Amino acid sequence: MISEIITIGTEILIGSITNTNGPYLSRKLTDVGYEVRYHESVRDSYSDIRDAIELAMKRSNVIFLCGGLGPTQDDMTKQALAHALGLELVFDEEAWEYIVNVSMSFSKNITENNKRQAEFPKGAIIIDNHKGTAPGCLLNYEGKQFFLMPGPPREFEPMADDIVENYLEKVAGENFVTSLRLLNIGESLCESIFREEKIETENVEINTFAKTGEVEIKIIAHAENPEDVKRIGKEHAQAVERVKELFKDHLYGNGERDSFETLVDLLREKNMTISFAESVTGGTLATMITGVAGASDVLKESYITYSNETKEKLLKVKPQTIEAHSVVSKEVAGEMSAGLYNKTQSTYSVATTGEAGPEPSTDHEVGTVFYSISKNGEEIMGGKRLFKGDRKTIQFRSSKFILASILLHELGENNGRK
Amino acid sequence: MISEIITIGTEILIGSITNTNGPYLSRKLTDVGYEVRYHESVRDSYSDIRDAIELAMKRSNVIFLCGGLGPTQDDMTKQALAHALGLELVFDEEAWEYIVNVSMSFSKNITENNKRQAEFPKGAIIIDNHKGTAPGCLLNYEGKQFFLMPGPPREFEPMADDIVENYLEKVAGENFVTSLRLLNIGESLCESIFREEKIETENVEINTFAKTGEVEIKIIAHAENPEDVKRIGKEHAQAVERVKELFKDHLYGNGERDSFETLVDLLREKNMTISFAESVTGGTLATMITGVAGASDVLKESYITYSNETKEKLLKVKPQTIEAHSVVSKEVAGEMSAGLYNKTQSTYSVATTGEAGPEPSTDHEVGTVFYSISKNGEEIMGGKRLFKGDRKTIQFRSSKFILASILLHELGENNGRK
Repeated sequence: MISEIITIGTEILIGSITNTNGPYLSRKLTDVGYEVRYHESVRDSYSDIRDAIELAMKRSNVIFLCGGLGPTQDDMTKQALAHALGLELVFDEEAWEYIVNVSMSFSKNITENNKRQAEFPKGAIIIDNHKGTAPGCLLNYEGKQFFLMPGPPREFEPMADDIVENYLEKVAGENFVTSLRLLNIGESLCESIFREEKIETENVEINTFAKTGEVEIKIIAHAENPEDVKRIGKEHAQAVERVKELFKDHLYGNGERDSFETLVDLLREKNMTISFAESVTGGTLATMITGVAGASDVLKESYITYSNETKEKLLKVKPQTIEAHSVVSKEVAGEMSAGLYNKTQSTYSVATTGEAGPEPSTDHEVGTVFYSISKNGEEIMGGKRLFKGDRKTIQFRSSKFILASILLHELGENNGRK
Repeated sequence: MISEIITIGTEILIGSITNTNGPYLSRKLTDVGYEVRYHESVRDSYSDIRDAIELAMKRSNVIFLCGGLGPTQDDMTKQALAHALGLELVFDEEAWEYIVNVSMSFSKNITENNKRQAEFPKGAIIIDNHKGTAPGCLLNYEGKQFFLMPGPPREFEPMADDIVENYLEKVAGENFVTSLRLLNIGESLCESIFREEKIETENVEINTFAKTGEVEIKIIAHAENPEDVKRIGKEHAQAVERVKELFKDHLYGNGERDSFETLVDLLREKNMTISFAESVTGGTLATMITGVAGASDVLKESYITYSNETKEKLLKVKPQTIEAHSVVSKEVAGEMSAGLYNKTQSTYSVATTGEAGPEPSTDHEVGTVFYSISKNGEEIMGGKRLFKGDRKTIQFRSSKFILASILLHELGENNGRK
């Protein structure tokens, strides 16, 4: 099904906001077997919107119009659509009641302008907006489907979920989509491995998505004819199994819980705790953990020890060790995590020291991170790693790498792999 | 000058990546007086790219084609452009030499495929790519300008800067653009203030951009005729002065240095230090500061004190205080910052306690944050604030609010305002 996403708003064209609705909906549509062939953005201009609609009718079957459903004169998507299709706008009593109720629940004033939001092209099916006052709609017209959706992502995204689930014509046949999340492996290495192993077939496609510090692998298959469902489903399942086996040392889940949530869940289940002594990462490790609900069960206290003085005072790092090896060293990281364990008795004691840049303070290159991870007081992982990027990127990547290492270690323990 | 940005890449249409090149270039073009009227994204398909080019020629004067300049068969932007315009592709010796040199400096292998990257539509002016192997180009054709640019943002953005500065036809007349950054004020309040004050004129336009936790105000004017330059320049300068005056309690700079950088710079200049005792913010405050180069001069140590036990042990918060007021209270925040000051003697001692959710642990609503900021041991700001959003958003917004309050306080001291 050839589809097109038109986003409407001058803010997009002057670069004031980035269009995230397009990618959000595109991912959803791709998962259900639609082919998104065009993204187009136009200004809040009646003629530009109308032209975009006329163009889309020539080249696409399913057309999504996002934005311009608000109550002001700037908002004219419905008007332009009605005009392009030669339909009149009809005031919908039920939609109006709904708008009044939603406005009241948000304690928003309702004005005469809001009535525009209850007008729809004749024949439209109204789609509820649970997060705002602008309902969406579906219009079937000469074999084309038009979906009108609100612009703000917090209203757009739930409606996109709703539309994909309840309003789209099903693509003939069946879709198979499996998502797997990997840590501590690069996208291109990942891609070259499954390419080399020739896991993709005529029916099974694999896409990779590089997320911040992780890779999502999506394994997709589509069986158009009922008689192929079983065979292609099996092909898909085999591909999934092969990918899982190939990447078992990196796999942590399907992305429903992110890696930090998965780690906190796991530590909590096992009654484990974690503490950090952060120098180069400067609080990033703690922030990643405390961003998860329930973090308080696993993290009780944590330290940012930026200066040598603080490392000595709080963690009992020996001045001689700093003197002999410099503060950016395996030895200092080791003494930091040992000192941290003595202070906190946490299951995991994690220490970092390194060079975040922009200028190095020691002989080490910017991006050098020494880390030490102890479990019940014994160092189980640690050493030196080099991370690329600017200061914040180095902090983020090294912290994500460390937490990923702990998560993969614990998952390995669960599977008896390590 | 009506312009259009076409981004090319199947990854965009399946939602695997978000198009950030479009907004980046749009901001730059808007600043120099161009009108970006269309953003369009198409797949790596020869015919789709060609159709997009043909459409753009009908409706735009300056056309940017981004992506599809790589060495593989998937990359066919130049081929499609040459075809659409009926031009041949010519191998450029100089570009080839450049590609070979760049590849060597990146220690990349060069293959026969790379030769495609040295082919350009006849008559094109080659634009260097300092970050990758794909040069861009400018092609003037029948009164239209085509710019071909690489897709990866780290290559695209510097080339966009270069093009806007050195290759664009100047819009007749002169542009006036001033950017001001505000903290601790919402975009809509900000907008309603300058609308009410009627600062915009026929010649002076104001755009606001909501950034994470701050607002950028851009004041733009354009004088088309030489005889208007002086008058409109003056009008623009007056508008800038009025905006500065209106928002003086929120203004921190022009965005060249972000608010965290500005704060670290200022504290360092004044030989001041800062420490944090973070409960609800869980390391976010420290991370914001340590993300800035030179943070080590102002932050020596910092604590994440998540549990009651740790607040008592490390910060000497009295168990009775927690008992009497609950751990989420002004009183506990106050004792935390006092305890922190006793430990660190930092100029600024900042403490937070609150409810990050998703479920509250006390009677307070999720999003409630109590904070206490002491300067040289005396509390100068503090109290209760409510922040909306999920857990991470509450942590982010409250931390940004607190650092913004300190920055605005110090700027006020500088200006003798407070």
